[in-house]
Amino acid sequence: MEYWQKDIETMGREQLQELQLKRLKETVKLAVNSPFYKEVFEKNGLTPDSIQTLDDLQKIPFTTKNDLRTHYPFGMAAIPIQKCVRIHSSSGTTGNPTVVLHSARDLDQWANQVARCMYMVGLRDTDVFQNTSGYGMFTGGLGFQYGAERLGALTVPAAAGNTKRQIKFITDFGTTCLHIIPSYATRLAEVMYEMGIDPRRDTKLHTVCIGAEPHSEEQRKRIEQLLGVKAYNCFGMSEMNGPGVAFECPEQNGLHIWEDYVIPEIINPTTLEPVPEGEIGELVLTTINREAMPLLRYRTRDLTRFIPGECPCGRTHRRLARFVGRSDDMIILKGVNIFPIQIEKILMNFKELGSNYLITIETVGYNDEMLIEVELSDLFTDDYSALERLAKEVTRQLKDELLLTPRVRLVGKGSLPAPEGGKAVRVKDLRKLC
Amino acid sequence: MEYWQKDIETMGREQLQELQLKRLKETVKLAVNSPFYKEVFEKNGLTPDSIQTLDDLQKIPFTTKNDLRTHYPFGMAAIPIQKCVRIHSSSGTTGNPTVVLHSARDLDQWANQVARCMYMVGLRDTDVFQNTSGYGMFTGGLGFQYGAERLGALTVPAAAGNTKRQIKFITDFGTTCLHIIPSYATRLAEVMYEMGIDPRRDTKLHTVCIGAEPHSEEQRKRIEQLLGVKAYNCFGMSEMNGPGVAFECPEQNGLHIWEDYVIPEIINPTTLEPVPEGEIGELVLTTINREAMPLLRYRTRDLTRFIPGECPCGRTHRRLARFVGRSDDMIILKGVNIFPIQIEKILMNFKELGSNYLITIETVGYNDEMLIEVELSDLFTDDYSALERLAKEVTRQLKDELLLTPRVRLVGKGSLPAPEGGKAVRVKDLRKLC
Ligand SMILES: [Zn+2]
Ligand SMILES: [Zn+2]
Repeated sequence: MEYWQKDIETMGREQLQELQLKRLKETVKLAVNSPFYKEVFEKNGLTPDSIQTLDDLQKIPFTTKNDLRTHYPFGMAAIPIQKCVRIHSSSGTTGNPTVVLHSARDLDQWANQVARCMYMVGLRDTDVFQNTSGYGMFTGGLGFQYGAERLGALTVPAAAGNTKRQIKFITDFGTTCLHIIPSYATRLAEVMYEMGIDPRRDTKLHTVCIGAEPHSEEQRKRIEQLLGVKAYNCFGMSEMNGPGVAFECPEQNGLHIWEDYVIPEIINPTTLEPVPEGEIGELVLTTINREAMPLLRYRTRDLTRFIPGECPCGRTHRRLARFVGRSDDMIILKGVNIFPIQIEKILMNFKELGSNYLITIETVGYNDEMLIEVELSDLFTDDYSALERLAKEVTRQLKDELLLTPRVRLVGKGSLPAPEGGKAVRVKDLRKLC
Repeated sequence: MEYWQKDIETMGREQLQELQLKRLKETVKLAVNSPFYKEVFEKNGLTPDSIQTLDDLQKIPFTTKNDLRTHYPFGMAAIPIQKCVRIHSSSGTTGNPTVVLHSARDLDQWANQVARCMYMVGLRDTDVFQNTSGYGMFTGGLGFQYGAERLGALTVPAAAGNTKRQIKFITDFGTTCLHIIPSYATRLAEVMYEMGIDPRRDTKLHTVCIGAEPHSEEQRKRIEQLLGVKAYNCFGMSEMNGPGVAFECPEQNGLHIWEDYVIPEIINPTTLEPVPEGEIGELVLTTINREAMPLLRYRTRDLTRFIPGECPCGRTHRRLARFVGRSDDMIILKGVNIFPIQIEKILMNFKELGSNYLITIETVGYNDEMLIEVELSDLFTDDYSALERLAKEVTRQLKDELLLTPRVRLVGKGSLPAPEGGKAVRVKDLRKLC
């Protein structure tokens, strides 16, 4: 068993908590230099000395995305702006974007975090790593770039889009690992097969790091099968640097969250109380290894749970279960909470179905209804009675999972908009609000 | 007078040449590990020991872009691929792309090279640097990113396109410096004025680094005036890392080429002999500070000349004059050699004209003719006799410069395709080849 940083990755719980407490105290001391936390601490009668144990973290109020927005651009900075060397900014389609600031030390630590993840899944300096993320402001680009260079891999900064060119790089440069979003991974595989390239035979690909979009175990299996690789789930968000916050180990059973970088909590998003160990709730993170812009008890909106018990890989940092979506992505239909990932999980079970689907919620008469359009795979032809049987079986399984009956429409391959780099739009909500 | 690396930047000629010889010898020893140079040296009866003086460089044949293409992807690598950490690849619209490989040391030295350039034009760790280059494979992105972080500036990796968002970053983050291509700089300024933002009053911009497109002194002055900045010409090409190869100093009279990184020669592209000192010819460069993929006597296709004499800034590295184009960009019309930059220089003299123009070469009857379309500026209205006088005067000045008479068409503002990030297409050659 090999580790990037054995001492830290396999550190005993007690020692890890000591390290966390030490770093939490330093972080809080820094944080109160920012206009935002200065005010939060004053308002709540807190000082850095209020934090003497890890449990004392509970005294600090949550920080939300809205706090970042209202303190745009530099109200969260804990060090002088002149000491920062990078800004990442969200696209901010509505209202102010959010901004994250990094010092040189922060970037160095982030690169180490990503390198640790990559090393964990077996990547080495002999690997050729192609990054299909957008670069620039999107943290999946520079985040993986710096991490993979730190690992010593040969990096191919392909950036997003241009599928034919991606494939040329993969074959010409002997790419062994991709960073790719799951919907684009299946799309890329499809195009390769259409071009007569069998990625399992004609490329050196052995690993893909998939993230940025929630996806099901079935979709992972499909990607692994199509590309002939091991696919590892990675979790990141720009507020927490970007990629590398949590990452699957070779066990593929949960994502180790690096507890020397963040302190994770899982709360009930309604009551804001901690959920019982092992139950699903909203992930809340406190940075303890960042100086330019520490975030205390940041509400990620991402829903997950801790996986109890020890991981056979020997790493002691706790594992998060596959994310079940964002509290924002949840569809509430006829009083039922639905996550797109539940639907995807069912669709992926059918070999007859492709990877591309679209969920539309619309008002029909006085009712809100769900329409699920899904592309057929190559395997399937136009035998109408078989199609009808398939549609019925898909509908039945969806009903069992969702507890309501969606309309299912099977469409030809290529009928739905193909994901190309950016996150696939899976849900259209056309309901009339009244 | 301040320097990033005073000892190297102001080194006496003799000492600099000693350093060059030492590095050249090391480079040649490395280069012959590559399949390409191994063969070149064998074919020409050369060994690394053949290089005992700087003059011995002349014994080595030129390397061309075509050599890079035919040895795609890794035939130029001088160290094992596993020791490389980055590939940059040209887009390669025709034939194989070209590839440049970098080790970790190469990236470190490249970052230093760019930081040195930025420091030279007065940028410091207190600056906010916004990079409007494309990222990924395009070296203007990661090249400036690493250099600006090395300098310690606050970097805004905006990447290309989305003018409104660029402007929001400039105003919100207090951007003081842009890296931008010249045609996009004028476009950006125009959009700012349209939005009621006066960049001279409403932003903190004081410096822009302009490169990637040949441009005239007149265009520089226009950019400086519109944005209220100092604009510095930068030269780079992916084969020589990318940005940072040569850069203007505050004197704005020639670009210092960093002679501890490259050995520059200027040759007659037809005879391949060195041109007399001070005459225009093709720039040929030998890398002497790169290990993954050294290039010996690489023909850049870029046309320039050495500026004789010492620079008042105190830097001893020789200066290149503003590039007059690429040997590939040269238009041969009726036996006359024309560079687009000559035309641009004339157009920029007219306040009545905007920054956007298009040169079309077409066959009319049995003759090849040149049509120059240029947008009017805001200053001008639709007084037809005034327009006619203006067109006549523009035509007359162009005839004096080019020694042939183009057709000139003045068009309304916004009639020509607006440059948005990528290099502006300035020349359309529609001649019928017979
Ligand atoms: Zn594990
Ligand atoms: Zn100078």
